[in-house]
Amino acid sequence: MKAIVPSVKGTRDFYPEIMAVRNWLYARIREVSEKFGYQEYEGPFLERVDLYAAKSGEELVNEQSFVFQDRGGDYIALRPELTPTLARMVAQRQNELVYPLRWWSFGPFWRYERPQKGRTREFFQWNIDIIGSQAIEADAELLAVAVEFFKSVGLTSQQVKLLVNNRRLMDVQLENLGIREGQKRDVFRLIDRKEKLPLPEWRQYAFDFGLTQEQLSGLESLLVNESLWETSDELKRVFELLEGMGIREYVEFAPQIIRGLDYYTGTVFEAKDLDGGRSILGGGHYDNLVANVGGEPLPGVGFAMGDVMITLVLEKYGKLPALETAPAQVLVTVFDLERLPQSFALAARLREQGLKVVWYPEAAKLQKQLKFADRAGIRFAVIYGPDEISAGQVALKDLHQRNQELVSVENVGERVRQILAQSERV
Amino acid sequence: MKAIVPSVKGTRDFYPEIMAVRNWLYARIREVSEKFGYQEYEGPFLERVDLYAAKSGEELVNEQSFVFQDRGGDYIALRPELTPTLARMVAQRQNELVYPLRWWSFGPFWRYERPQKGRTREFFQWNIDIIGSQAIEADAELLAVAVEFFKSVGLTSQQVKLLVNNRRLMDVQLENLGIREGQKRDVFRLIDRKEKLPLPEWRQYAFDFGLTQEQLSGLESLLVNESLWETSDELKRVFELLEGMGIREYVEFAPQIIRGLDYYTGTVFEAKDLDGGRSILGGGHYDNLVANVGGEPLPGVGFAMGDVMITLVLEKYGKLPALETAPAQVLVTVFDLERLPQSFALAARLREQGLKVVWYPEAAKLQKQLKFADRAGIRFAVIYGPDEISAGQVALKDLHQRNQELVSVENVGERVRQILAQSERV
Repeated sequence: MKAIVPSVKGTRDFYPEIMAVRNWLYARIREVSEKFGYQEYEGPFLERVDLYAAKSGEELVNEQSFVFQDRGGDYIALRPELTPTLARMVAQRQNELVYPLRWWSFGPFWRYERPQKGRTREFFQWNIDIIGSQAIEADAELLAVAVEFFKSVGLTSQQVKLLVNNRRLMDVQLENLGIREGQKRDVFRLIDRKEKLPLPEWRQYAFDFGLTQEQLSGLESLLVNESLWETSDELKRVFELLEGMGIREYVEFAPQIIRGLDYYTGTVFEAKDLDGGRSILGGGHYDNLVANVGGEPLPGVGFAMGDVMITLVLEKYGKLPALETAPAQVLVTVFDLERLPQSFALAARLREQGLKVVWYPEAAKLQKQLKFADRAGIRFAVIYGPDEISAGQVALKDLHQRNQELVSVENVGERVRQILAQSERV
Repeated sequence: MKAIVPSVKGTRDFYPEIMAVRNWLYARIREVSEKFGYQEYEGPFLERVDLYAAKSGEELVNEQSFVFQDRGGDYIALRPELTPTLARMVAQRQNELVYPLRWWSFGPFWRYERPQKGRTREFFQWNIDIIGSQAIEADAELLAVAVEFFKSVGLTSQQVKLLVNNRRLMDVQLENLGIREGQKRDVFRLIDRKEKLPLPEWRQYAFDFGLTQEQLSGLESLLVNESLWETSDELKRVFELLEGMGIREYVEFAPQIIRGLDYYTGTVFEAKDLDGGRSILGGGHYDNLVANVGGEPLPGVGFAMGDVMITLVLEKYGKLPALETAPAQVLVTVFDLERLPQSFALAARLREQGLKVVWYPEAAKLQKQLKFADRAGIRFAVIYGPDEISAGQVALKDLHQRNQELVSVENVGERVRQILAQSERV
């Protein structure tokens, strides 16, 4: 026998029980997004590499993306993120769309990174954005959407927290420290690495690109200053609004949150699992995205959440529900080849009544057919042999309760529904 | 202003109103698949090229697929079809799975072909398979699933037809004409081109690979012999079962249907739009697929349907429903910045009652806010100014009916539901 051809590293096989989890997550995301009046959209999964030149930063496209030349010679990327696509789609219809525009999406993305716990090369991501409003209220709305999602999946503010910062606040603070415009990118990168490097190494990195001892000390003080947000009108308003919505407990000021270097201009935020500190979602406010792909400037706020980390976190906290994995509610057994058409007709009738029904495709031994139902988790088996057919009845076997009753052919569907409804009430 | 970066040729942007159509199609597919007890699964979107070597035929992988070398040097394909992935996934868990296994999927695929009406380079495809049953009843089941789908979207047997043939039947017939085993592939390809080439060219093609005049005449007679199926026990049984299910009218014997050259072994079928003859879905019975990727042999039957052609066909026959495209049911307006938190709180309460609600993120002029609701198609606007707040009331504006009423704050949600329910009954 040949060896089985392996799957591509960093991709996942969604067997039905795993697909059910993804569908459950997608349904929660849909529920929350639509509650807030967001509309589902989707971009292509392939984009020209140039689309990313404007925004993503060189590292993402040049080092971490799947990029190839197609048969026509064009450079194509498997999309590593959605925002440039969103910007393109909005720019294309900029004058027809109604603002503020609220759009959400849940689809596949690819990044060529080393797979590890919580990270795959092919993953799904929830993207949600409000576009065309400069109001700080839009920032609060997106934070409220994230909190509503956490609530809907049962994660508490003791388990996850939205860490919020503001890029304008940081700009002012860095200016106060005498940090030059040209050094800001380096400093933002430095802040971003604070928790990833040992302290001496981190400090050395600061000196290497020219911070003075005084500037570094000032920066270190900034990063532990929990009331710094009070100097930002924007953050004050955001927190006030969240307070009013009763969700302030999920949100915390965190000066070390910087996010994308060239991209965000106001509020930035990241949700973290408090146990372990892994990042679950991230986003912020931007001003110029649509302009970057060729439209007129439009501001926006949005965030993205990958499916891999949130699923791990939900699993850890025991919040993934027990999902139905049985393929059907009823198996219609087949007595013999001659009576098979009658079984098929009965199955068709039960389907018309809204039940999920399989028939056994062969006139196999009854024991074999019942064993199939049992192993597949199908609760009911309908036995429809010559005695039953002539009496206009079927034997309805409940494989969970391990009992059996005779029911008239007309009433099978109704009886099954009845028993299912009773079990749900228990 | 820069030009907008174009999208990749042959891909589609799913703006909300287009996404709604795809979601509607997906929902119909889900409904039918689950009715018959099929479970949703999904494979990765990337696969190693070797996976396709076993089955797909060289043309599909070498000429019509997006194939590239990743940064690690592996040759990767954007999957052009699902069956090899299905085979791999089954082979990996061959001893744990419960047979007959019924699985379905709806996801993206890529083919590097010239885009044209009904064909894009990136498309979605419904795949549905029953695996592990050799019974001819499994073939009938898949045909029944296809018919049930057509019925569920309102396509009649005057509009679409399932054309059915059998590869074993054709093998016997070709042997009867003295066609050698080594010539069969050529003959199958010849049959496949019957309707694509002018007759003299088609005949010349037959002579070119060595058919005699007698064999060619025999073949031509075969291809117009409408009762040929009566010589096939398998087809007789299939048609008998479909007759019993009351769906025979959707199905027709068609000796020119051949499908994949190396792959199918029994029943083969294709659904066609009778007006124009374009192919909507295709599939058949296979014996050795799982074995080809390294498992033990398992038979199966399945079909695939792309989203592009069926959507065109449905559109042509006026069967695409009018879909709700409004982002929300209610807009909560904002009177001024001071009272904005109260509007937000009211919106949150309406969401808790299960309504889709947007607030306007700014204290803009009321006319501007109402114009937004109107342009976005949001039916209700809630006006919550100082007078209303002190009276514990809101003004509920119905933008469809162009009227307005005062409702107590507690009853807004209920009143909206009431009016919506009334409109549905009309």
